[in-house]
Amino acid sequence: MTDPQTREQTVLEAVGQRRELVNEAITEELPIKSPERLYEASRYLLDAGGKRLRPTVLLVVGEALTDVEPMSADYREFQSLTDEPVDLMAAAVSVEVIQSFTLIHDDIMDDDDLRRGVPAVHKEYDLETAILAGDTLYSKAFEIMVETDAPPERVVAATDTLASTCTKICEGQSLDVSFETRRDVDPDEYLEMIEQKTAVLYAASAAIAGELLSADEEVVDALYGYGLDVGRAFQIQDDVLDLTVPSDQLGKQRGSDLVENKQTLITVHAREQGVDVGGLVDTDSVEAVTEPEIDDAVATLEEAGSIEYANQTARDLVQRGKSRLEVLPDNEARDLLCDIADYLIERGY
Amino acid sequence: MTDPQTREQTVLEAVGQRRELVNEAITEELPIKSPERLYEASRYLLDAGGKRLRPTVLLVVGEALTDVEPMSADYREFQSLTDEPVDLMAAAVSVEVIQSFTLIHDDIMDDDDLRRGVPAVHKEYDLETAILAGDTLYSKAFEIMVETDAPPERVVAATDTLASTCTKICEGQSLDVSFETRRDVDPDEYLEMIEQKTAVLYAASAAIAGELLSADEEVVDALYGYGLDVGRAFQIQDDVLDLTVPSDQLGKQRGSDLVENKQTLITVHAREQGVDVGGLVDTDSVEAVTEPEIDDAVATLEEAGSIEYANQTARDLVQRGKSRLEVLPDNEARDLLCDIADYLIERGY
Repeated sequence: MTDPQTREQTVLEAVGQRRELVNEAITEELPIKSPERLYEASRYLLDAGGKRLRPTVLLVVGEALTDVEPMSADYREFQSLTDEPVDLMAAAVSVEVIQSFTLIHDDIMDDDDLRRGVPAVHKEYDLETAILAGDTLYSKAFEIMVETDAPPERVVAATDTLASTCTKICEGQSLDVSFETRRDVDPDEYLEMIEQKTAVLYAASAAIAGELLSADEEVVDALYGYGLDVGRAFQIQDDVLDLTVPSDQLGKQRGSDLVENKQTLITVHAREQGVDVGGLVDTDSVEAVTEPEIDDAVATLEEAGSIEYANQTARDLVQRGKSRLEVLPDNEARDLLCDIADYLIERGY
Repeated sequence: MTDPQTREQTVLEAVGQRRELVNEAITEELPIKSPERLYEASRYLLDAGGKRLRPTVLLVVGEALTDVEPMSADYREFQSLTDEPVDLMAAAVSVEVIQSFTLIHDDIMDDDDLRRGVPAVHKEYDLETAILAGDTLYSKAFEIMVETDAPPERVVAATDTLASTCTKICEGQSLDVSFETRRDVDPDEYLEMIEQKTAVLYAASAAIAGELLSADEEVVDALYGYGLDVGRAFQIQDDVLDLTVPSDQLGKQRGSDLVENKQTLITVHAREQGVDVGGLVDTDSVEAVTEPEIDDAVATLEEAGSIEYANQTARDLVQRGKSRLEVLPDNEARDLLCDIADYLIERGY
């Protein structure tokens, strides 16, 4: 058994190594060109940071699948299972670009002012530019996916996965918005929503690596399942962290989900336990809420067992996700994918 | 020489026949499913009407290229030049779906309340739903393109064309927005903007038919050029019609481009002729402007030769566009593509 701290170190190092390469590739694939304002706005959030977890998953899946030592091969000319060179890095950039597009449009829809510690794109620029920057990233992601130069039938499969994933993300966001005015969402519905809104992009990241590198359908399906499981676990952990991590580390007000009446697995569970979730925090603006108010709310949720329920659900998902990787060769990269899964629910922020 | 009225009849009949099939295919490719509100909003503008000109161009190019009699073949199993069945109708729906997505997002950006005589999606629903409906159509268009089931390398080419077209549309829209605050746009810049904002989707419609049906690169390029030329002519004619067609036929206030200080080929030409374009219409809301005010403005533009300049530019583009079709076999469908080109600048609304 690896202890969480060693694992955190391993994962952060692996993510950090790839992040540098991914960031470099983003500037190559998305140069600032005319019209400059549009491309600057498109790059704004990508340049503001982000762990690059999804690209990392995609790249490490490639390594595990083809049984090469982590960071030993050129991601730009990555040998597939049938010995064709594939630009796996382009695919990694593609999924990150989709992630960035969804964040830009989500921030408009949720009217969030801050993201990654900087103003949201529609605040830094304006609504029109933010809509258009998101739309530009959207098509760019497909252009970049074609540049992977995998065998055509594999590019078609990856493109199809990317497109259907985007559709599901929209459906998930639509469900999320509709949940805001509903008071009867149950945990299963909530899990389905985060599967569509968040987990599918992890699933696509893992599956697309398999598709481009000519893995069998069964392996691609298992990779997709891994991403769905750990992606849901990731989102549940995000919801837990919103309640438990100090605001300055979180980059936004702790407990903002409660203030904004956003449903989480924690609140839908608590409601089922008879907690008056709507009354947990009386203040209705994140600017005005106080830390003691949040502390009280968290204590109530802990008492109802809701935070432990969320933690346990996330742990179960990670366990199942890891077991799906048994279709892959037993190697260092596969171990890293397991560590990433564990890290996603052990991370402190 | 066909006279314009006979031609109009021919084109409207051809467009009408295909429109029915396209509308049927839209309901098949985009069924209303859960989450219903999202899919209803996505379909709202598609169901509100539209001539389906781009799908018609795509389908007729397919007929001209493979030398079959118009409306004689099944678009869902259309024989390519290499005798593979291609679902050409799916491609036709795909470009129309992209067109609809751009209208939804453009109406938000331009804050337009009406479209096709009905409220814009962000007015009928709300901003969040309109953004998301556009995003859903965006990915659906790529999913539907994959369903054409053409040989994989052909699907990749068509997908790439669709994606780069969407990027160009965003660039064009960004230029259009930036023009609103500039007073020194010249005709060449304006023509470049409408090429990116409008013409590329006509170009893509024509080229994608060629790509999917296994045409040579030279033919695909010529088809793309045809679309670019007639697409620009179409937009210029739209700008002319905004000044010359009564409001009730237009479905919006005549002269609204002038009221909103929107640049057109007409106004950028007039400015070069020394006309004080900003002072043509003093009223700054389309609700308050009067018909005599528009009449005076139009008279000034006519005097400056700007409307004739726009008409002549459109005619030249149509002429060049038609000449590009000489790469195709001489047949009824090719004649129809020429008629469509002429009709686009002869139409009254």
